[in-house]
Amino acid sequence: MHRSRLCALVIDCKVEDIDAAADFWSRALGKPVRKNAPVDSGYREIETRDDELIMLLQQVEHPSRTHLDIETDDLDAEVRRLEALGARRVEFIKRWWVMEAPTGHRFCVVRPQRGPLEAHDNANVWSDDPGKPGAR
Amino acid sequence: MHRSRLCALVIDCKVEDIDAAADFWSRALGKPVRKNAPVDSGYREIETRDDELIMLLQQVEHPSRTHLDIETDDLDAEVRRLEALGARRVEFIKRWWVMEAPTGHRFCVVRPQRGPLEAHDNANVWSDDPGKPGAR
Repeated sequence: MHRSRLCALVIDCKVEDIDAAADFWSRALGKPVRKNAPVDSGYREIETRDDELIMLLQQVEHPSRTHLDIETDDLDAEVRRLEALGARRVEFIKRWWVMEAPTGHRFCVVRPQRGPLEAHDNANVWSDDPGKPGAR
Repeated sequence: MHRSRLCALVIDCKVEDIDAAADFWSRALGKPVRKNAPVDSGYREIETRDDELIMLLQQVEHPSRTHLDIETDDLDAEVRRLEALGARRVEFIKRWWVMEAPTGHRFCVVRPQRGPLEAHDNANVWSDDPGKPGAR
């Protein structure tokens, strides 16, 4: 049994200036850019409330797109569950799996980002039976 | 003075079978497909809580991608505000504007989707000064 939930929206930006990109989306959505992000990381964070999705910008080389992150307390089990639903593994990077949905969308499976998933009442609890929620 | 906020995540799917696409994302995210959607519309909705983003799937001809919707109580004022930030109008469709961010992402500006924006404490209130939040 493991847990997972949608946790983040990542705005992948093929841009020269990730700060300008963050500034646009910050003003468009009316939320500040987090100040303490490592400046040279290629990532910026738009500050959201704890009950909202995490919102990241990432400087990329591929065309701009938006992707979703699913957080889980068992990376292997969650990736296997998603494979059973028709997704495929693309690449393991640092601490997360990049996967591709049968609809063609890339998404990432990541470790818990906002503390233990037990603490979030919108986290799914999955049994070993792929694709079916277990007892909550 | 007008209001706006991020309201929806739309998974645009270049697929033959939008029901299969909805089934995958429903199981992946652990949320049911809304039953009462018009079957022939090319849209499906993943049911989310009122405090979560609306989540839609849309059958499209262009390559699969994910886009954001911003809801507003003044479409013209919000589109002008976003233009002043660097976005451009692409097309007006039925009741909403398709825009393109300076980062290359398409997004839509739509009418209020979950009742009046005054009722949502995460809605932004914008003055006539583009890009700056007004008094809340």
